[in-house]
Amino acid sequence: MTQSALDPGHVGVPRKHVHEFHVRFGDIDSLGHVNNCRYLTYLEDARVAMFFTDPERERRHPLHGVVVARHEIDYRRPLLLRPEPVRVETRVTQIRAASFGLAYEVCDDEHVYARATSVMVGYDLAKGRTRRFDERERAFLEAYAPAG
Amino acid sequence: MTQSALDPGHVGVPRKHVHEFHVRFGDIDSLGHVNNCRYLTYLEDARVAMFFTDPERERRHPLHGVVVARHEIDYRRPLLLRPEPVRVETRVTQIRAASFGLAYEVCDDEHVYARATSVMVGYDLAKGRTRRFDERERAFLEAYAPAG
Amino acid sequence: MTQSALDPGHVGVPRKHVHEFHVRFGDIDSLGHVNNCRYLTYLEDARVAMFFTDPERERRHPLHGVVVARHEIDYRRPLLLRPEPVRVETRVTQIRAASFGLAYEVCDDEHVYARATSVMVGYDLAKGRTRRFDERERAFLEAYAPAG
Amino acid sequence: MTQSALDPGHVGVPRKHVHEFHVRFGDIDSLGHVNNCRYLTYLEDARVAMFFTDPERERRHPLHGVVVARHEIDYRRPLLLRPEPVRVETRVTQIRAASFGLAYEVCDDEHVYARATSVMVGYDLAKGRTRRFDERERAFLEAYAPAG
Repeated sequence: MTQSALDPGHVGVPRKHVHEFHVRFGDIDSLGHVNNCRYLTYLEDARVAMFFTDPERERRHPLHGVVVARHEIDYRRPLLLRPEPVRVETRVTQIRAASFGLAYEVCDDEHVYARATSVMVGYDLAKGRTRRFDERERAFLEAYAPAG
Repeated sequence: MTQSALDPGHVGVPRKHVHEFHVRFGDIDSLGHVNNCRYLTYLEDARVAMFFTDPERERRHPLHGVVVARHEIDYRRPLLLRPEPVRVETRVTQIRAASFGLAYEVCDDEHVYARATSVMVGYDLAKGRTRRFDERERAFLEAYAPAG
Repeated sequence: MTQSALDPGHVGVPRKHVHEFHVRFGDIDSLGHVNNCRYLTYLEDARVAMFFTDPERERRHPLHGVVVARHEIDYRRPLLLRPEPVRVETRVTQIRAASFGLAYEVCDDEHVYARATSVMVGYDLAKGRTRRFDERERAFLEAYAPAG
Repeated sequence: MTQSALDPGHVGVPRKHVHEFHVRFGDIDSLGHVNNCRYLTYLEDARVAMFFTDPERERRHPLHGVVVARHEIDYRRPLLLRPEPVRVETRVTQIRAASFGLAYEVCDDEHVYARATSVMVGYDLAKGRTRRFDERERAFLEAYAPAG
């Protein structure tokens, strides 16, 4: 379902996480195409795969305690029910002490269906407040950020 | 479920559409609060009420053929499962020839849970292309826009 | 949103819980009516209201630790997007040591849209196993069951 | 995503349709496992793949105009968020003039998470009434039914 396109040897080549998924019948609304709300679900699934469930993570969680603070999304083309998979390609942008950005494309080999960005904030669920990322988390995020 | 706060006599008072709804159990994710994706569903329900299903519309559709081109949303506070209703308050911004903006607050009497904006584009579904709004549509939209 | 129709004085009159809700745009599928899967969501919301969130519960939970073991549902009429509310009317059937049944109608004043039943099982989440209901839980359930 | 296990040479071996899918984060409810309502979505996706979108169908629709009349579902084990796919295995039962049955297992190599059955009814959407299946539809359905 998911693979990472890590190119550590190609300096300057933006790294991205690739999450492949299938449109579900229930994603289609009464207008006959994927409902605009469902794109956020696709982005969420891409994040969950990237941060948590990718088999390569071996069930270790490189990142924990983040919440969504903001989304922006531009819809480019209608997406229909189809057997072929669709991809969410995700890059990390703007890593800060207690937040980072994500930039996504919902696409296949031919088209971009939506472009989006998110602001994610480190959050300590137990203490109920924002938190800074540690070194290990920063290293994980930097692997998906364009080389500086 | 829904009421319009139209104040035609109060020049300069921004008019807004108020949509009241209840959080569903299924809106809650595994972190215990309303999932970020579901807020777009709340905005959608507010638009559908505002444009189509409000009883005061008497099943006439003052606006037809619009699609979502863009959303921005800022999450402010977690929203929990609760018996008390929540509101989406919606205003029209920036009416153009073939598009308009919406600004929303997801709130109750005490808190704002999210603020969002959308860009809506006039669309002719039969012809598959953007379209301009007619006079009747513009008048409808202006009733929810701040007096100029 | 929700009211209880308790008729303690009418022996033999089946008591029922009434949950009122509004169809959401997102409940409609590409065929133009409420998707069959969403009816289970309506039943869930009715149960959550009945067991947990009804204002009359005053945030006390008369029942805790139950899971769904089985559903049966018969679809009777298509349900469309509409401003008028719809109801789920729920009765308790067959109260046993560690399980009980529910019988529902999804309806309005004119039509029944679906009839369904569930088997609910007492479950101790901490211990990960089924459990028996205590006296207080049985009394709560009996208030919604036909008088014996 | 989907493959058909057709064994035309093995008389008496029940044929089944196999639909593989991934649990989405949004399928998980506040109790931490796949919400009971979502299983119907999985069954729906399996039917849509079986009837419409499987690549082997080459976008021809062997079956058209069916609606769900009834579901029964038994929940056997909680299903969690995980990278490994899950399957819906579907067989056709009881082919009649204007209806047929389906029997499903939601499973992986180790466990059965739910068993379900549906009654599907031939429906003429244009005329708004039930309809009989034609010869081609019956042949399609029989390919997934146990050999008589």
